Amino acid sequence: MPASSLFKSRLLTPGPTAVPEAVLLEMAQPIIHHRTKQFQAIFAELSERLQRLFFTTGPVLTLAGSGTTAFEATQASLAKPGSKAVTIATGKFGERWQDVYDAYGVLQVRINVEWGKTVDPAELEQVLKDNPDTSVVTVVHSETSTATACDLKGVADTVRKTDALLIVDGITGVGALPVKQDEWGIDALVTGSQKAMMLPPGLGFVGLGERALKRLEELEPTGIYNLDLRKWVASHKKNDVPFTPPVSLVRGQRVALEMIEDQGIETTWQRTAKLAMASRAAFEAMGLKLISSSPSDSVTGVYYPDGVDDSKFRAAVRDNHGVHIAGGQVGRHGDYKGKIFRTSHMGYVDAADTLAALMAIETELRAAGHGIEPGTGVTAASRVLTAD
Amino acid sequence: MPASSLFKSRLLTPGPTAVPEAVLLEMAQPIIHHRTKQFQAIFAELSERLQRLFFTTGPVLTLAGSGTTAFEATQASLAKPGSKAVTIATGKFGERWQDVYDAYGVLQVRINVEWGKTVDPAELEQVLKDNPDTSVVTVVHSETSTATACDLKGVADTVRKTDALLIVDGITGVGALPVKQDEWGIDALVTGSQKAMMLPPGLGFVGLGERALKRLEELEPTGIYNLDLRKWVASHKKNDVPFTPPVSLVRGQRVALEMIEDQGIETTWQRTAKLAMASRAAFEAMGLKLISSSPSDSVTGVYYPDGVDDSKFRAAVRDNHGVHIAGGQVGRHGDYKGKIFRTSHMGYVDAADTLAALMAIETELRAAGHGIEPGTGVTAASRVLTAD
Repeated sequence: MPASSLFKSRLLTPGPTAVPEAVLLEMAQPIIHHRTKQFQAIFAELSERLQRLFFTTGPVLTLAGSGTTAFEATQASLAKPGSKAVTIATGKFGERWQDVYDAYGVLQVRINVEWGKTVDPAELEQVLKDNPDTSVVTVVHSETSTATACDLKGVADTVRKTDALLIVDGITGVGALPVKQDEWGIDALVTGSQKAMMLPPGLGFVGLGERALKRLEELEPTGIYNLDLRKWVASHKKNDVPFTPPVSLVRGQRVALEMIEDQGIETTWQRTAKLAMASRAAFEAMGLKLISSSPSDSVTGVYYPDGVDDSKFRAAVRDNHGVHIAGGQVGRHGDYKGKIFRTSHMGYVDAADTLAALMAIETELRAAGHGIEPGTGVTAASRVLTAD
Repeated sequence: MPASSLFKSRLLTPGPTAVPEAVLLEMAQPIIHHRTKQFQAIFAELSERLQRLFFTTGPVLTLAGSGTTAFEATQASLAKPGSKAVTIATGKFGERWQDVYDAYGVLQVRINVEWGKTVDPAELEQVLKDNPDTSVVTVVHSETSTATACDLKGVADTVRKTDALLIVDGITGVGALPVKQDEWGIDALVTGSQKAMMLPPGLGFVGLGERALKRLEELEPTGIYNLDLRKWVASHKKNDVPFTPPVSLVRGQRVALEMIEDQGIETTWQRTAKLAMASRAAFEAMGLKLISSSPSDSVTGVYYPDGVDDSKFRAAVRDNHGVHIAGGQVGRHGDYKGKIFRTSHMGYVDAADTLAALMAIETELRAAGHGIEPGTGVTAASRVLTAD
């Protein structure tokens, strides 16, 4: 029998990620109007669950759109044109936030880190000393394109010594990696629905601390309407949103967060870390090299050995084993296209999904001529998964 | 037995509207990645169906967000700060688009029409003669807040005599009222997913004609990133979107448009018109007064007779008969709050739903002391519904 008939289909890309069946069915419930007690109860519960997930007592806004929508709204609402931002990029997404501030006419001191490496808080500290007029700092917690996590607590500690606000892209961070907004002093924490949040794409979330709320009151942003967070904060105080919300996605997100909280937020972080650790051990046992010297636990990036064709390999992994993994991306300061593959450990993914992915990858690398003893990856991963 | 046990639940608000079961189930399909042949085939089919619905050969973009997101993107992408727009408002939504241009620093000649009335193309013609430097004209086809439709073809004919671009809010128009983008010369036609499109909220659509595409090439908008339509047009040429799309909603929209096309777009317009006509006949037979002198076929607005309490009435209609209708809204140039109710005829609603709504409304008006012979509304509506 063909290998493909042994496997179900598994989505192990770093977003969109698999959505639990219970969430899909919640989204298939009949549509309700958003100005009803029924919806308001759902939305209030979602907002409270988001606060617990973000570890914040501040408002966590729910915006319609992609993670980019939510991050752009935060950037545009917290810094006015002509002010100065320190923008840290360790990959394609950090570079995108630089593009956004370029579009808005916000001046930038860019910290561009070589792809695969992460930012040094000491370097950031020096940049902030040299630029005491810095208005905001943007940083990506888990840079999906380079599978790299930064020392977010170290970055936050550094920024907190200054008057600048810290805006964090937590799009593959929140719900996957430990992050505590209030305790760490993060002024704005942003995520999207299609990563560790176990929902389809279509919602973005913004947690705002006290300093960020104060900045919103002081600034008078022009040139934004829908993305003006002041509108969203004002509505949020009334348990509402300023524009018709994606009611199905909101319903689904409430259920997904209930599932996460039922398992425990810390347990979810630990599971994500364990799956990542098992995967890294497996890839190393297979003789492969990680792309990051500071690997994120939400996604693992691996260099192909010589002679493996990216698109043929990923097609074989998908067609023969049902496992959908991602390739590499291109940015201004790096180019991983055709050179790497990435697997996700975020959200609705478990040890069996991870073992299936590792077995598929190992099998197809062998088929492509890379000599690996059958079972090498799964054995190394099992050791990590079964350890205390 | 209580009346409530005789009825199913019916969402007859002018957005969100009911979503067909087949669409809900399509949205509950397992998540697929957007960079796959499977998704690309769905997206390509959706784009073609959108073109047929818009009656255009130009690109129809699919944006994540609300209808407001899509309209703001269109406004911001087609007129630069300091240029002049003629902005027509016949209700709350037309006023919102004036607020958007205020936020972006676009100069405005405002045509504010008394709520319940519509714009006179002759007045527009004069305004355009007085302002030959007009860059864009914005108009709402079906103003949901006042249940008023404009003579969109007349407006388009007037604008087409000038060099200004016409941006149309078709949010409760497209799929409900006859509109032919290319034939009528509409430069940008915008709609949202949660009205006549039979989908939950979360997607916006923008159809762009040749002049609009040319304007996008010529202008260099600043201060927008995600909402910059040039990014979306460039991606659309490759059957793609620039940011992760709401894959579940996109899947659902393809199925919803298939259902509309299977019945026929013109047939859908005719059904909407018939349900509206039947409702208007019923309300008039009940002795009620419509709020609009130019009623839209997608939504009907009706003044309460003296002594009916809006929130109690709508709660009784919902709790006793399962019918969810809308109240009135407040804007800068009108205030319908507490004074009117509105019922929808758009999308997944049929003659039986309409009769249920009319019977519920009639029964609760009688309970509130308004003397109507039982069956008056249903009888008048039936005559219209059964006529050829």
